[in-house]
Amino acid sequence: MVEPISIAGVGRYLPARRLNNADLPPLDKPCPPAVLERIGVTERGWASEEETIPVMAARAAGRALESAGCTADSLDFIILSNWTQRRFLPDFAPKVQHLLGAPQAFAFDVSTSCSGFVYGVAIAQGFLQQPRFKRGLVVASETTSQRARPHSKATLVFGDAAGAAVLERGWSPGRARLLDVELMTDGRYYEAMQINPAGHVETHIPQKELQALAIHSFATASQRVLERQGMTLDDVDWVVPHSGTAGIQALLLDTLKISPDRVLINFPRIGNVSSAAIPAALTEYVDNGTIKPGDVVLSPTTGSGWYAAAMLYQM
Amino acid sequence: MVEPISIAGVGRYLPARRLNNADLPPLDKPCPPAVLERIGVTERGWASEEETIPVMAARAAGRALESAGCTADSLDFIILSNWTQRRFLPDFAPKVQHLLGAPQAFAFDVSTSCSGFVYGVAIAQGFLQQPRFKRGLVVASETTSQRARPHSKATLVFGDAAGAAVLERGWSPGRARLLDVELMTDGRYYEAMQINPAGHVETHIPQKELQALAIHSFATASQRVLERQGMTLDDVDWVVPHSGTAGIQALLLDTLKISPDRVLINFPRIGNVSSAAIPAALTEYVDNGTIKPGDVVLSPTTGSGWYAAAMLYQM
Repeated sequence: MVEPISIAGVGRYLPARRLNNADLPPLDKPCPPAVLERIGVTERGWASEEETIPVMAARAAGRALESAGCTADSLDFIILSNWTQRRFLPDFAPKVQHLLGAPQAFAFDVSTSCSGFVYGVAIAQGFLQQPRFKRGLVVASETTSQRARPHSKATLVFGDAAGAAVLERGWSPGRARLLDVELMTDGRYYEAMQINPAGHVETHIPQKELQALAIHSFATASQRVLERQGMTLDDVDWVVPHSGTAGIQALLLDTLKISPDRVLINFPRIGNVSSAAIPAALTEYVDNGTIKPGDVVLSPTTGSGWYAAAMLYQM
Repeated sequence: MVEPISIAGVGRYLPARRLNNADLPPLDKPCPPAVLERIGVTERGWASEEETIPVMAARAAGRALESAGCTADSLDFIILSNWTQRRFLPDFAPKVQHLLGAPQAFAFDVSTSCSGFVYGVAIAQGFLQQPRFKRGLVVASETTSQRARPHSKATLVFGDAAGAAVLERGWSPGRARLLDVELMTDGRYYEAMQINPAGHVETHIPQKELQALAIHSFATASQRVLERQGMTLDDVDWVVPHSGTAGIQALLLDTLKISPDRVLINFPRIGNVSSAAIPAALTEYVDNGTIKPGDVVLSPTTGSGWYAAAMLYQM
């Protein structure tokens, strides 16, 4: 028996500073309009010095708690996903705990690149199987823009954001519900992407191979989670995937054989915000009424590790 | 109802290179014998370049799997604790997955300084509440010596090691069993210890305050886990704590009011190996027959975050 888990609230935070393509520092060589269009991002947020990982996380978490109608001091735990800033010790979650005012919550970080939010949800699902834990927070906060080499095309793609969800043990009709989560790892591709000593992302396998790996991961994780729930993509109202790149999004549509109007992505407006992508998009499309109560949503993701994950839920 | 969890096997790995106090690079100023004795470490291991975090983790894990009588390909997940080496992405666990040959296992890292192994065990306990997960590995691997400023007294204290445990869903009489785990975090002390830009540990609160914080954490986490199980320290055969420093060990005895011959520490022979301390000591004292089947063991730990944790188990 698996104890059902409710999604009590979601929230997000975007940096105050928004840059459109003309605002960005100049590229090494100017990008022709056709290439800009293919990249597909017209605007992204860049965190200020004050908008640190824990500060953005606490702001997104505050909104998720508000939408859940509860306060931080009722949290049993906090799981923070981030890979774009690193420190030896402590990790960032204890700072979030302190900023939020959640003294009862134990707090720790998970860093599985772009799939960190879904890994965090799966870990939370485990804790919430045990009756002494009632409510937990999973929050992703990333300053992905700082992992792009300045003046490279990656500055067009990467953005900063945070997104959060409050999860609760138990479920009753009318509430949003986590249906299932699938996690996968394939260490054979450990070196596919790395961060160089300057702190900038580098890809060490051909772009085509990387795309194939990403698509295979998306498809396999999605298939496993659907099969386990006796469902198919026809039962899914919306796909809210990790955004990746426009190229991967196109391949995803093609592979899953799903109509573009069922895929909700805010990538053009916020860029690739790594593990914050899913909760940031989910919050946007719940808040604007696109995703309605009762809708079934699938959120697949993948990231350098090689990690893959998918979560299936009903809002 | 909480599903019982078995401890199927434990294992450890110590670096080949062992240094006694005379072997260490000279200190800034020589340590008088009385100070050396107070510090209390006579030997520690230093990892070679080849003995990386994932390599040491895979070796400790291999021994834990062997003692559990199972193979890596039966693992559903791998949780790696490490804070002493950092990378943006990927973290180290996917590399361990690949080195071990555990293609079915999802793998991720947890970094809660010296308390990482016990945090990992608590996360594993959560996953194993769900019937589709049968067996998981928690492994801590640390090169703590590299976080000591060269020629500082910290080089006397810090050592390198890895330690692992295989956990399984379900329990039957005669098997070792996880009884309970308590996790705590207090972000008010986020700045108590930090790593400076050179990668070396620095303490930012008075030593007495740090010791008081550590002891309070040890005592509170232990008390909570014992109370929840309707037990007292009298029911505990052995305490296998995180080692910390000799000063903290003395205060721990004093605070818990426990006889030194019930506290099992291998600190003098391996130093403070951070999150690997508990599984490395546990393996030693199980292997040499000190801890016998049926013995009840308490393992409290604490670490800069501020994190605290305690696990209670019966071997």
